[in-house]
Amino acid sequence: MPAVPSSSTSHPLSIRQVKIHGGFWGKRQQLMRDALIPHALEWMERLGWVDNLRDAAAGKPFDHAGYQFADSEVYKIVEAMCWDLVRAPDEGMLARVDELVGVIVAAQEPDGYLHTLFGRPWQKPRYSDMAWGHELYCFGHLIHAAVAHHRATASTELLDVARRTADHVCIMFGSQGMNRVCGHPGIETALVELYRTTGEERYLDQAMIFIDRRGSGTLPVTELGAGYWQDAISVRRTTVMHGHAVRALYLAAGAVDAAVEKNDTGLLAIMRSQWDATTARRTYITGGMGSHHMDEAFGEDYVLPPDRSYYETCAGVASIMLSWRLLLATGEARYADLMERTLYNVVATALSSDGTKFFYANTLHQRSADQLPATSALGVAIRGGAAQRQPWFEVSCCPPNVARLLASLGAYAATAVEDGVMIHQYVAGSIHADTGAGPVALSVETRYPEHGSVTIRVETAPAAGTTLRIRVPSWADGATLTLPGGTVVSTVAGEYVAAVGVRKGQSISLTIPLTVRATYPDPRIDAVRGTVAFEKGPEVLALESHDLPAGWLLEEGHLASVAVTERDNSVYVALQRVTLSPAAWPYSGSQPVEPVSTEDVALVPYHQWAERGPAAMRIFLPLSQSAASTGYSRVQEAAEVEA
Amino acid sequence: MPAVPSSSTSHPLSIRQVKIHGGFWGKRQQLMRDALIPHALEWMERLGWVDNLRDAAAGKPFDHAGYQFADSEVYKIVEAMCWDLVRAPDEGMLARVDELVGVIVAAQEPDGYLHTLFGRPWQKPRYSDMAWGHELYCFGHLIHAAVAHHRATASTELLDVARRTADHVCIMFGSQGMNRVCGHPGIETALVELYRTTGEERYLDQAMIFIDRRGSGTLPVTELGAGYWQDAISVRRTTVMHGHAVRALYLAAGAVDAAVEKNDTGLLAIMRSQWDATTARRTYITGGMGSHHMDEAFGEDYVLPPDRSYYETCAGVASIMLSWRLLLATGEARYADLMERTLYNVVATALSSDGTKFFYANTLHQRSADQLPATSALGVAIRGGAAQRQPWFEVSCCPPNVARLLASLGAYAATAVEDGVMIHQYVAGSIHADTGAGPVALSVETRYPEHGSVTIRVETAPAAGTTLRIRVPSWADGATLTLPGGTVVSTVAGEYVAAVGVRKGQSISLTIPLTVRATYPDPRIDAVRGTVAFEKGPEVLALESHDLPAGWLLEEGHLASVAVTERDNSVYVALQRVTLSPAAWPYSGSQPVEPVSTEDVALVPYHQWAERGPAAMRIFLPLSQSAASTGYSRVQEAAEVEA
Repeated sequence: MPAVPSSSTSHPLSIRQVKIHGGFWGKRQQLMRDALIPHALEWMERLGWVDNLRDAAAGKPFDHAGYQFADSEVYKIVEAMCWDLVRAPDEGMLARVDELVGVIVAAQEPDGYLHTLFGRPWQKPRYSDMAWGHELYCFGHLIHAAVAHHRATASTELLDVARRTADHVCIMFGSQGMNRVCGHPGIETALVELYRTTGEERYLDQAMIFIDRRGSGTLPVTELGAGYWQDAISVRRTTVMHGHAVRALYLAAGAVDAAVEKNDTGLLAIMRSQWDATTARRTYITGGMGSHHMDEAFGEDYVLPPDRSYYETCAGVASIMLSWRLLLATGEARYADLMERTLYNVVATALSSDGTKFFYANTLHQRSADQLPATSALGVAIRGGAAQRQPWFEVSCCPPNVARLLASLGAYAATAVEDGVMIHQYVAGSIHADTGAGPVALSVETRYPEHGSVTIRVETAPAAGTTLRIRVPSWADGATLTLPGGTVVSTVAGEYVAAVGVRKGQSISLTIPLTVRATYPDPRIDAVRGTVAFEKGPEVLALESHDLPAGWLLEEGHLASVAVTERDNSVYVALQRVTLSPAAWPYSGSQPVEPVSTEDVALVPYHQWAERGPAAMRIFLPLSQSAASTGYSRVQEAAEVEA
Repeated sequence: MPAVPSSSTSHPLSIRQVKIHGGFWGKRQQLMRDALIPHALEWMERLGWVDNLRDAAAGKPFDHAGYQFADSEVYKIVEAMCWDLVRAPDEGMLARVDELVGVIVAAQEPDGYLHTLFGRPWQKPRYSDMAWGHELYCFGHLIHAAVAHHRATASTELLDVARRTADHVCIMFGSQGMNRVCGHPGIETALVELYRTTGEERYLDQAMIFIDRRGSGTLPVTELGAGYWQDAISVRRTTVMHGHAVRALYLAAGAVDAAVEKNDTGLLAIMRSQWDATTARRTYITGGMGSHHMDEAFGEDYVLPPDRSYYETCAGVASIMLSWRLLLATGEARYADLMERTLYNVVATALSSDGTKFFYANTLHQRSADQLPATSALGVAIRGGAAQRQPWFEVSCCPPNVARLLASLGAYAATAVEDGVMIHQYVAGSIHADTGAGPVALSVETRYPEHGSVTIRVETAPAAGTTLRIRVPSWADGATLTLPGGTVVSTVAGEYVAAVGVRKGQSISLTIPLTVRATYPDPRIDAVRGTVAFEKGPEVLALESHDLPAGWLLEEGHLASVAVTERDNSVYVALQRVTLSPAAWPYSGSQPVEPVSTEDVALVPYHQWAERGPAAMRIFLPLSQSAASTGYSRVQEAAEVEA
């Protein structure tokens, strides 16, 4: 399991304990094993990112390949493979891990330092560029990889490397050391997890030092402002996440980890409050975070433009890391809710259906099907903004980040509590848990999110049975729980529903209505005023240019929804086409919008967009005059009548 | 005059021929003389930008101060002072110009090269960084300054420097030279103007070489894409402006210049078409251009978010340069229309009322009154994004650019045609023109834009009188022209209205209704759907937090306009306050918005915002349900009843 708090409200289960069998996520785990990991390894070898480490071990001058954080991508893919070996052993993959671990071990310097871009005679000195050097950031990913390797294989080979690096960090940056922080957080969660693995308290102390040192202005102020790297204000005085989204979320996850281990309830409350504010005011409908292209950063409150949205895939992964830690600490359903939303609409969107192409940035509104990303001299895409997924990026943090998340996904589906098991995510498979009352084994059958039924059968339980707590999504009004005797009870959306004393051989079923929902944005989100989005279950739906009637263009006619229907398990929205004449000046005294014709047009899950080739796409559809005035009820009624 | 085409539909008048006396622009010209220019010179001296040139002349090693384009700021302020000396001679300013010209002359190298960051033994070689080095860009501003100096003083001292630099450029980058272009256009207009001044055709040829060489991929591809510096597609195949806005607009202005001089009607038609497409789809209501913060670039069509708008002040200046050249070439009113819009809503906004503070980026929606820009170690603001104007910037292209525009503003107000004079901008003052029929002198009286009356008296004219063509703004429905005999004739908005045979001593008056107008954005501009803006005359109006009733916050309550009234020469919009409760998740099945109370709130001209201290502000106001359904007519009627 990726995160093991010393104490928690809800106790994590390991990847070995929660097995996913097929279905939405099982299929993606297989893709990750068969396609994503070999693909990522091949690219990292091709671009010389692994060779950086080999060259460092060789001790001779070499040209460093890639960016200053290239080492971290190697560590992340090692972490992913380690988790994946727990999920499903594989000799070939184990051999590859052994080889890479050997490379990493050999690259470490005697005093524990390990970074391929700094410190050699022909390179810049160590710690000469705390702002952009990413040294501690890379150490963090090294430590995470080492913890995964140790937990997966029981070997201490990489863990010993991580300990030496962490010892070095404690000496260099401890209370007697340099009063500096890394421009990119990430080492904080790593140091806490290393403490959890080794029991070395100074690693925890060092994590807290970095957290509390942040915001004291030790980093330079650039055009992006000190808030870019969360150095403008201390973590404890921060009220809402800001600056570079991945940086902010990694830091927040580390702060929750440290707060939990230190039993710092004040800090934990602050982090919960930051999560609340960020979720309420700075999060896209997909769970994506980080509006700005310029600095990959959170925008101000309610600045969530769909057509210039950036939200990086890695910010989605980082958001899941943060919510997971808060879920363990509190057992509250809203954290699992945001995780689900982010999994189905960020993580699943980022990865292509063949496992070898990725979105780095994730727009909610693609205006042109022709948009291609800029590519480097090597022919590699440069970050975000395109109408199709790309095989690799110059900055390629996202592919291995998705891999390590998918490999460890089982661990996020359920937790153990004193009297039973909590089910947070609906995945077909098996769950084994040690509860206070004894071992519990469950099998879960579901075709979620295609169908809304989740059946949990107790395979093993104490004699008096066990308590099963199942999350009811916050959007799932009308969900019901069928108890072993056949009794059906209602549930409360956004809470866990409990079935007490379920015995071996008995089953319970959660039934979630998966009727399409019309969803309206808060009026404070100016960029999507007067629009509606459609959701079905955990999936946000999207309109793709592929599905438009012949001759319609997503941008040419004003598309206004008046009703939504479901037929043959597909969702159709009635769209009014209007003809907008080209205007010499796009601001006028009136704007008559006369509908020309109306057609039913299919919507697809957002995570499937651009799978049929490059496409124009939008999630938020402009409301027609009639839909705007009669609004939600009319749309909803239409859906209910048809459903 | 800044641009003197060899042939034109409408012939430019000089700064000496069109004098502005007081009023909106006269006041700003005085500010420019008394405050802006001394302020800019002081900052350039303080930061060492002039010393770069002095040091270069001294020939000893020195540390270059500022960015690679620091030289260009000195040239721009020299250009501004030269134009301003034409407007109103001043011994002190002339002495300062002489001194700076001496510094520049001394800094030039024997072969004509002149840049303070490249080519010395301790510096990078010349032309080793065509992408970011800005060498040719700086040469361009040097040449513009030299042309201004020559036209203002008849001296050839700086013109000789410019010729040597241009000769050097023709050798290095001519058809037998390096097949390269500068990452930042700007030299194209300069070379054409130098050709116009000296008659050296190879300068014109070299300008055309640069224009036609662009788009052939000689610049590197960065994260920003080749389109950033207009190198992804040739100028002649470009259909709409894209990439970095200032780069795109300077290049387009140069292409118009070259097309006119070469009588290349195909290229001229292409540039007109680019202007049309850009104005129709990529321009803010204020005339501002360039949506993106990241790359200071045009967004895709209709991507014009008000709360993440960037549009740089310099892009406004560059847009005026382009429209002016098209106006001279065609005599069409729409170019003067966009110039007026940009002058009143970009240029006037960028400059503070005391002449010493500036907006670099110009947002249309400031959410927080507390937002301050990041500042460098020198305490200087770093580009855009703030709730108040700043005294200076690390990249300080905008202040001297505003200065050179204001100094030469008179030349943009009127032109001469065969049978008379065309009036493009309404400024109080005097106009002298040589028409085909003889000299004409006019005096213009107006308090525009405060009042809509413009009276033009003919002071000198041929015996048969002269023809006066006066632009009627495209928004000015109902404007009338009063002829010498008292006859009142109607006009066509967006055209020139002509009075033929107006004789010495006679007057005509244009009367423009300045009733407040409700303006709706094109539905394709997603970011401002369901909103209305208000305009009065050429001024876009804005709602500032200063004017809200006590307890109202611009962002807290949803502010929906239902009616607009005018009282005591002020505009008031009826705003409904609604209370939006904080929601844990800002997307829901319904969004009831119940108005709590309604108040009349004053609007101010956008160019005045943040003059009463830092403020939250917005231009596009969300429409209430009732205003959205009854729409324009109701709002307009209310305004007309009150007016």
